[in-house]
Amino acid sequence: MSLQDQYNPGPQIAQCGGINLGTTDIEKSLWFFRDVLGMEEVERDGDVAYLRAYQELGHHSLVLTSQEENVVNSYSFRVKRAQDVELFAEELARQEIETVEVPAATEKGRGTAVRFLLPGGMHPFELYYDIDKPLAPEAIRSKLPSNSSRRRGLGVRRLDHFNIQTEPGTINEAESWVRETLGFKRREYAMLPENPTTVMASWMSVTPQVHDLAIVANRDELNGRLHHLAYNLENYADSLTAADVLQDLDVKIGVGPGKHGIGQAMYLYVFDPGSGHRVELYAGGYLVLDPDWEALKWEPVDFPEGMTWYGDPIDLKPGSNGRVTTGGAGLHRPTRVGA
Amino acid sequence: MSLQDQYNPGPQIAQCGGINLGTTDIEKSLWFFRDVLGMEEVERDGDVAYLRAYQELGHHSLVLTSQEENVVNSYSFRVKRAQDVELFAEELARQEIETVEVPAATEKGRGTAVRFLLPGGMHPFELYYDIDKPLAPEAIRSKLPSNSSRRRGLGVRRLDHFNIQTEPGTINEAESWVRETLGFKRREYAMLPENPTTVMASWMSVTPQVHDLAIVANRDELNGRLHHLAYNLENYADSLTAADVLQDLDVKIGVGPGKHGIGQAMYLYVFDPGSGHRVELYAGGYLVLDPDWEALKWEPVDFPEGMTWYGDPIDLKPGSNGRVTTGGAGLHRPTRVGA
Amino acid sequence: MSLQDQYNPGPQIAQCGGINLGTTDIEKSLWFFRDVLGMEEVERDGDVAYLRAYQELGHHSLVLTSQEENVVNSYSFRVKRAQDVELFAEELARQEIETVEVPAATEKGRGTAVRFLLPGGMHPFELYYDIDKPLAPEAIRSKLPSNSSRRRGLGVRRLDHFNIQTEPGTINEAESWVRETLGFKRREYAMLPENPTTVMASWMSVTPQVHDLAIVANRDELNGRLHHLAYNLENYADSLTAADVLQDLDVKIGVGPGKHGIGQAMYLYVFDPGSGHRVELYAGGYLVLDPDWEALKWEPVDFPEGMTWYGDPIDLKPGSNGRVTTGGAGLHRPTRVGA
Amino acid sequence: MSLQDQYNPGPQIAQCGGINLGTTDIEKSLWFFRDVLGMEEVERDGDVAYLRAYQELGHHSLVLTSQEENVVNSYSFRVKRAQDVELFAEELARQEIETVEVPAATEKGRGTAVRFLLPGGMHPFELYYDIDKPLAPEAIRSKLPSNSSRRRGLGVRRLDHFNIQTEPGTINEAESWVRETLGFKRREYAMLPENPTTVMASWMSVTPQVHDLAIVANRDELNGRLHHLAYNLENYADSLTAADVLQDLDVKIGVGPGKHGIGQAMYLYVFDPGSGHRVELYAGGYLVLDPDWEALKWEPVDFPEGMTWYGDPIDLKPGSNGRVTTGGAGLHRPTRVGA
Ligand SMILES: [Ca+2]
Ligand SMILES: [Fe+2]
Ligand SMILES: [Fe+2]
Ligand SMILES: [Fe+2]
Ligand SMILES: [Fe+2]
Repeated sequence: MSLQDQYNPGPQIAQCGGINLGTTDIEKSLWFFRDVLGMEEVERDGDVAYLRAYQELGHHSLVLTSQEENVVNSYSFRVKRAQDVELFAEELARQEIETVEVPAATEKGRGTAVRFLLPGGMHPFELYYDIDKPLAPEAIRSKLPSNSSRRRGLGVRRLDHFNIQTEPGTINEAESWVRETLGFKRREYAMLPENPTTVMASWMSVTPQVHDLAIVANRDELNGRLHHLAYNLENYADSLTAADVLQDLDVKIGVGPGKHGIGQAMYLYVFDPGSGHRVELYAGGYLVLDPDWEALKWEPVDFPEGMTWYGDPIDLKPGSNGRVTTGGAGLHRPTRVGA
Repeated sequence: MSLQDQYNPGPQIAQCGGINLGTTDIEKSLWFFRDVLGMEEVERDGDVAYLRAYQELGHHSLVLTSQEENVVNSYSFRVKRAQDVELFAEELARQEIETVEVPAATEKGRGTAVRFLLPGGMHPFELYYDIDKPLAPEAIRSKLPSNSSRRRGLGVRRLDHFNIQTEPGTINEAESWVRETLGFKRREYAMLPENPTTVMASWMSVTPQVHDLAIVANRDELNGRLHHLAYNLENYADSLTAADVLQDLDVKIGVGPGKHGIGQAMYLYVFDPGSGHRVELYAGGYLVLDPDWEALKWEPVDFPEGMTWYGDPIDLKPGSNGRVTTGGAGLHRPTRVGA
Repeated sequence: MSLQDQYNPGPQIAQCGGINLGTTDIEKSLWFFRDVLGMEEVERDGDVAYLRAYQELGHHSLVLTSQEENVVNSYSFRVKRAQDVELFAEELARQEIETVEVPAATEKGRGTAVRFLLPGGMHPFELYYDIDKPLAPEAIRSKLPSNSSRRRGLGVRRLDHFNIQTEPGTINEAESWVRETLGFKRREYAMLPENPTTVMASWMSVTPQVHDLAIVANRDELNGRLHHLAYNLENYADSLTAADVLQDLDVKIGVGPGKHGIGQAMYLYVFDPGSGHRVELYAGGYLVLDPDWEALKWEPVDFPEGMTWYGDPIDLKPGSNGRVTTGGAGLHRPTRVGA
Repeated sequence: MSLQDQYNPGPQIAQCGGINLGTTDIEKSLWFFRDVLGMEEVERDGDVAYLRAYQELGHHSLVLTSQEENVVNSYSFRVKRAQDVELFAEELARQEIETVEVPAATEKGRGTAVRFLLPGGMHPFELYYDIDKPLAPEAIRSKLPSNSSRRRGLGVRRLDHFNIQTEPGTINEAESWVRETLGFKRREYAMLPENPTTVMASWMSVTPQVHDLAIVANRDELNGRLHHLAYNLENYADSLTAADVLQDLDVKIGVGPGKHGIGQAMYLYVFDPGSGHRVELYAGGYLVLDPDWEALKWEPVDFPEGMTWYGDPIDLKPGSNGRVTTGGAGLHRPTRVGA
């Protein structure tokens, strides 16, 4: 019995595990994620496709669901231990947060999950532990055991983070809840210039990444919005190649490449041409290994350098494409088109 | 009180925090680490110099001590909470492992540490928590709050990992102890071809990095050896630039650049011309975010691809420079030359 | 005697050889070009400094002259054969273009040059052949015979091109003259949207580079202007590192990094803090090897993609820093401050 | 009439234009060049396929001919002017070198060529001028007019150079002839250690590239051999990605990535799995713009650094794969298998 086994760290989130995107044009979304970005289509179940990136061993990190609305059906987080799903469910009950049990195989390859709406955010969150780890077909299987398949396309290698938005009136509640109940730590943040007690943006993580989840105040007072999901690239050079290829394919680039001061990673925001959801191709960044890390606060005067240290500047002004967000499903999973 | 605060995860290691290298030519070592690699000389105390990389906020990750032998004076690990130093000390006592208390400021800027020899390895390990976080002088201070100083030289940004060697007869003991007492997890490993119950090499971590510490069986039956310490670079491109510049400076390159299959990072091994200790410039790699990661076992037939996926092949044959290692101090810190 | 020796190709320009920049703050300019960009200060002669990049074997490609105005004192082109200086001088006389003979060693290390004002442009051009090839001091000399010194700083390796502006009313004259007398070939170009018979911009070369010289119509009706000089970097990755370091040093970045569609190179425009002249750090691009290359014409609708294929978009609107240009000396070299 | 039009530079080679490779497994060769490296299959004519890279506007730079022997059917060079084909033919006649006229469309899309065996080398050379410039199909056409198609696969962008071998006894003859008749200039070279008046290797060009053609003495006394053809990549980063992907695809890597001291380019040598011909993926390098460039001589003691400045070292010892070469057709083009 190891020293650590004598202790109980309690329920914890391990990682940002997956996202289920509704898309009104699943074939175009598949072209984008599979053929262009290079993900593996692990399984197809009628109007639902399951994909993973080449460095993911689990069954999927992305579900594309053909449906009438381009909304996010779920944001899924994987917990650290099998028992944590139930432990979190109990805590949600204690807090009188309504939950729904998502039975195993509702998403193929995945175990039971507990589903609820983020307090203050209304985003449909799901917590799960079990997930299959299927071998990729031999035709694309990697020789490296840490990769499921060979690098293909633009080489996205794993889901990196979610960036979600809430209305300013509830962002403090949402951000605190994520930290206090889910155990995320605030790494960098800024407060609203016009209201310095309200969070404008907070980058939080359960891992040494600067963020597994960012929460940002929606300037148009909308709640429950997705700004983007991010897939990780190996090097900044991959960001440049991606921009080059996507530009020639007429895939709409929102902004980038550029380097964030916040997090020190290279960004490239593009829109899935099938669903309109924004996807960030994300490379690099620093790791927070200090156990006593103090969240870095960005003052308004420095914030532009925090957004864009160098490169194509992020524009968040009204009317800019930086303001575009997509919505989410409610507490219950949407009925599928073909079901 | 957050949910996690209701639990006690016990004493844990947070990160590979620092290394104290004895050097017989401190001026040449400073030229290498400070002027060529681009580290900051934070403080100089007679025959001891304290350095950090540009992305480290703590006082130092490297101590260069001018002394008569090019040995490692200590391998230091930072614990997660202030009380963990004492908790680990109690566990060491319980295991009847001899310890030495290293008073605060023995290394400038650092709090009290507990020192002991790795069971089975004989390497001098130190565990500490407190460390100062001084601002860099304005002349080199970064505008980014997550960087202490501006990127300079070859751009090493933080200490990454240690790679140590023990004799084959005790490696299983050392490797198990690191996992069971210090809480490291085995991520990838291989067993000795001639003795499949003995670990040949094990890559272990307390963070999502594939390794914060690797332990390898010394083929010359030596114990307590350093194979290399590693500093992290931002991108593979930095590895190539480093190789270019170091080659022109006639700094001895051991091997590289090349990409490990194990860990999927770019390596470049060079020797500090002042001390002869080997330093790896290390870029990239994958993160282990899966909570149920199963250690990847490398069979002998695949091991060469694990060592070198592509690039300059690592040569570990007798007589090759890959066999060169440096020794370590004993339980007590060495008396300094000038003391 | 080789087959080609039986023919006479006539006088030809070999390369864009050097530029002499007036600067009102030579120490700051030296800090920028030498200490930050990494150029070698080959020789200092009172208020004049001679610099070259690490891949240049000639005595200098950049002259910094301390003087009261931040103007370009000369744009120098090297001819292919010793006799071409005289042959071009004869042609200039035939065309009744006024010339000045610049005696050898007026710029240290350089032979006799013929100086004149570009017809239609008024830029002071000099043509020369002889230039010394001094070895760099041992402390910085490269082991590679094709490099004069070791790569240092941000790693600029050679002068790449000039980008000059004329008033729209004379640009056709200037652009034609450069092609018909100096033998440059038009590689890519655009015409003024409001006046489709007038050149807006023309990228021309005597080498397979897409341009050694670009001529652009000045939208503020100014003549004889420098938009930028460009130094070459080895890889796109170097552009990113340069942007990172320059941003942290508070050196003013005009625009970039981004990739031109025209020429397919990565751009990063920065301003010499000593003189205000704009310097492009330029990486990559395609080579024109086809002997029957037809100049590529950019229509107004496509021109934005030609300017910026991806990355930080070039802004040329009135009031933007993209409109900033610097002037030039007249037919006679300016008297030096200290002379 | 431009100034230069008043002169006649005589017949000149413009570029290394194309190569015709015999392959015993054309489907596998197509998989390699088209599907993996990313070339366009422009035209298929039974057992012959015509390919070009994404930055080539001409009809093809590579011809794959299905035949019984993996030999090079022709090395083709494009001349600068239409009349140069005939002028070179006259010079060959004057030198009593036997020639064959290759009628237009023998290679689809190409005009008449003159064919002969390199004196001293026996390699089948062809000189041509006319070549079609077809638009790529819309499905892959680039928006950039300087690219025929979009970047795909590993992103090879244009043919770069040939590296051929002759027996040591005739290499001086071959190397001189290439310089004196074809007008190549020697840029870097080395002499045989055991016979310092015999060329060991010579890098020569008609363009500012360090070499469009290298001639090397074959250590096994063979004549008329191909060591490799090279395709150009945009950045060093592309070399690393190529190595990664090719390694996972089990395409045989000969050596690399590494950086040559000679020419300063990144190399990666791989073998076409269909034909066994060696292909170099080549990135970077310096340009020779100095009109008075003096060929750089490499002494034996420095030659290893010239071969490999850093990275995977080139091994040319007997028995190493670096010794593998492929042969060539004779004066007459081989009869096609299906003809
Ligand atoms: Ca080697
Ligand atoms: Fe993001
Ligand atoms: Fe290592
Ligand atoms: Fe430019
Ligand atoms: Fe080559």
